Amino acid sequence: MTNAPDPILGRRAMAMLDALARHSDEPGRLTRLYLSKAHRAAAEETLGLMQQAGLRSHIDTLGSVVGRLEGSNPDAPALLIGSHIDTVIDAGRYDGTLGVVLGIVAVEALREAGIVPSCPIEVIAFGDEENARFPTNLSSSYALSGNYRSEWLDGVDQDGVTLRDALTGFGGDPARIGEIARDPKRYRGYLEVHIEQGPQLEAEGLPVGLVSAINGVSRARMSVIGEAGHAGTVPMTMRRDALAAAAEMIGAVERTGAIREDTVATVGVAKVQPGAINVIPARVDLTLDARSPDDAVRHAMVADILAECEAIAEKRGVTLSVEPFMDSPATPMDRALIGLLEESVRETGLPARHLASGAGHDAVAMAALCPVAMLFVRCKGGISHNPAESITVEDADVAARVLIETVRKIVA
Amino acid sequence: MTNAPDPILGRRAMAMLDALARHSDEPGRLTRLYLSKAHRAAAEETLGLMQQAGLRSHIDTLGSVVGRLEGSNPDAPALLIGSHIDTVIDAGRYDGTLGVVLGIVAVEALREAGIVPSCPIEVIAFGDEENARFPTNLSSSYALSGNYRSEWLDGVDQDGVTLRDALTGFGGDPARIGEIARDPKRYRGYLEVHIEQGPQLEAEGLPVGLVSAINGVSRARMSVIGEAGHAGTVPMTMRRDALAAAAEMIGAVERTGAIREDTVATVGVAKVQPGAINVIPARVDLTLDARSPDDAVRHAMVADILAECEAIAEKRGVTLSVEPFMDSPATPMDRALIGLLEESVRETGLPARHLASGAGHDAVAMAALCPVAMLFVRCKGGISHNPAESITVEDADVAARVLIETVRKIVA
Repeated sequence: MTNAPDPILGRRAMAMLDALARHSDEPGRLTRLYLSKAHRAAAEETLGLMQQAGLRSHIDTLGSVVGRLEGSNPDAPALLIGSHIDTVIDAGRYDGTLGVVLGIVAVEALREAGIVPSCPIEVIAFGDEENARFPTNLSSSYALSGNYRSEWLDGVDQDGVTLRDALTGFGGDPARIGEIARDPKRYRGYLEVHIEQGPQLEAEGLPVGLVSAINGVSRARMSVIGEAGHAGTVPMTMRRDALAAAAEMIGAVERTGAIREDTVATVGVAKVQPGAINVIPARVDLTLDARSPDDAVRHAMVADILAECEAIAEKRGVTLSVEPFMDSPATPMDRALIGLLEESVRETGLPARHLASGAGHDAVAMAALCPVAMLFVRCKGGISHNPAESITVEDADVAARVLIETVRKIVA
Repeated sequence: MTNAPDPILGRRAMAMLDALARHSDEPGRLTRLYLSKAHRAAAEETLGLMQQAGLRSHIDTLGSVVGRLEGSNPDAPALLIGSHIDTVIDAGRYDGTLGVVLGIVAVEALREAGIVPSCPIEVIAFGDEENARFPTNLSSSYALSGNYRSEWLDGVDQDGVTLRDALTGFGGDPARIGEIARDPKRYRGYLEVHIEQGPQLEAEGLPVGLVSAINGVSRARMSVIGEAGHAGTVPMTMRRDALAAAAEMIGAVERTGAIREDTVATVGVAKVQPGAINVIPARVDLTLDARSPDDAVRHAMVADILAECEAIAEKRGVTLSVEPFMDSPATPMDRALIGLLEESVRETGLPARHLASGAGHDAVAMAALCPVAMLFVRCKGGISHNPAESITVEDADVAARVLIETVRKIVA
């Protein structure tokens, strides 16, 4: 790496992140749920930051903050840069918000450098990425491609408030959601910078990485049903122990998830019945979450896992029932955009590390509108969705420079 | 087997069991907790049955029903026959009660046959074997050897009632518990008939079996502590998944519990934190229950299990903490008494099958007073502590005849 410059852009980004982190629905910790008071306050703050950066800005009818810088050719397809400003409960301050503030920082830098883009640039701060309040799925970003589902409006939060009522209370208008949809011909691409939320960049000592694809996800509920019995009186050879069977299946999930490249497979839930020290378990309910950047690979992995688990169940005389409930395809990144990001990373003197995104992002929804690409930023310990979420000012600076150079190439 | 006789003794026992099953603390199911109204009613009914059988009977100050038949030599050490009449919540009607009614049936049969025993016979119906109401441990039977612990009186049930108050309400007197203690010199042995509560006799087509020993029990709580992480973003090679580690440990418990003769080892509880489909588990709390008729074998088994689990934890970079909280020794059966039971089994034309008792029984406490021996009766599906608990009238008859012949040999 060349001599590190003064991280002036990183410091600018951190100042904005600190300002936005003050807006929380809960005292003492950061919680900023979609359409809440804190979301409104953060959206207003974002609006102000965009306006200072010279963006013509507004809050749209779904609560997204949109700022636009016109280009020398107003009819050229525009470049979108964005991420989200909603958070999970008891969140960190970087997940989502980093991508929004770096979009603003990039526009500020272009204008300071006296650069007039050839095409319009839009910076956007979505409000419903975490899906932490309502049972939606990237609703604010799906709206841009006209994929907003009206049934989302009927979803209720834990207080029984519908999204429709929350949206009206926020100042939005459910009847005008259709107007948010963009014409795909008028957009050339979407760039999103996001914290990695995993440990790979840290492990390799790299500040940034290029997302190769956003993983597809398979999910299922699995129930293992054996037979309860007295833990003292049923000989080992006569048991149909649901937990011992489930344990062997958990081992199969872990092993099978590890044999292919870039795949992960996780059992996050195991509920044991009856769950008493002196009773052989009768039933265990498991969850399966399996991900891959390649849908065919993911389907093969899940098929292998289920075949192994079926074999374990048969061998042990227990019953396995599997209820798949999610088969979400992978989102590929645009080769041309990733190529420009990669070039910009190399220009900073860093190697270009490609890695799959295990988590979903607004880019999944934006891929329905236009080509998308993402840049990951190293985060401490790979931790996210937690107040311990942390990045360095130097890494934020590297990400800002990579983003700015990439935007310059696109809008030249 | 010789021609099956009319199961007249089995029918007599079943009639008594049916009569006693009417006394429940809950409508619609059998629940008879220590010192409850149903326990009082069942004790009175038992008292009546004993008196009909010609036993001089009373309910002692801890609620046990004691009936005595004098022998031709009143100074000869007495033979005890018994079990318990308390039940778990939503119980079957045979666990415990079978051993009490067969004691009564045996005395009735001896008297009908005009046999005067050489030594006294005492039939006893204990009231606190299941330990389902108060945090005690075989308190009513331990009292006979002077091992009643005064702190048991301070234990409270789920309504906050102390055992002391419940005992007074029942008509007992905490101040007089010491008077229950017997002089070991005045007792020659204790016989207990009990349902097997396991599937071995059924699997081998045998109505009764001879208990070789009551297993010792080791118990421990085990906590596996790994690291939470996003199920999508942390590569398989960088995980410290507490559930995957716990699953491997559960496999080790099962495998190690099966390699020695007559041992069992069970993980009945596994609680996963945080327990979300998209989060790598950070912590799993397990329980271990390991049993063997041989204490040295049990200790070796537990040491092997813990060594394997430690090795698994080390290999996976997770932390294992183990908190042992029970090391209850095995109770051997008296060779002479078991020899007489075995002879009586063979006289019915059946093979003498010896098997360890995985569950605890009043005989554990009675072993502190005198030699003990137990006879197991086949139960359907090995099921106990459940309304589905079931035995046949023919098996009850075989058990009655074996008990009677054994008693005849002892009191001849």
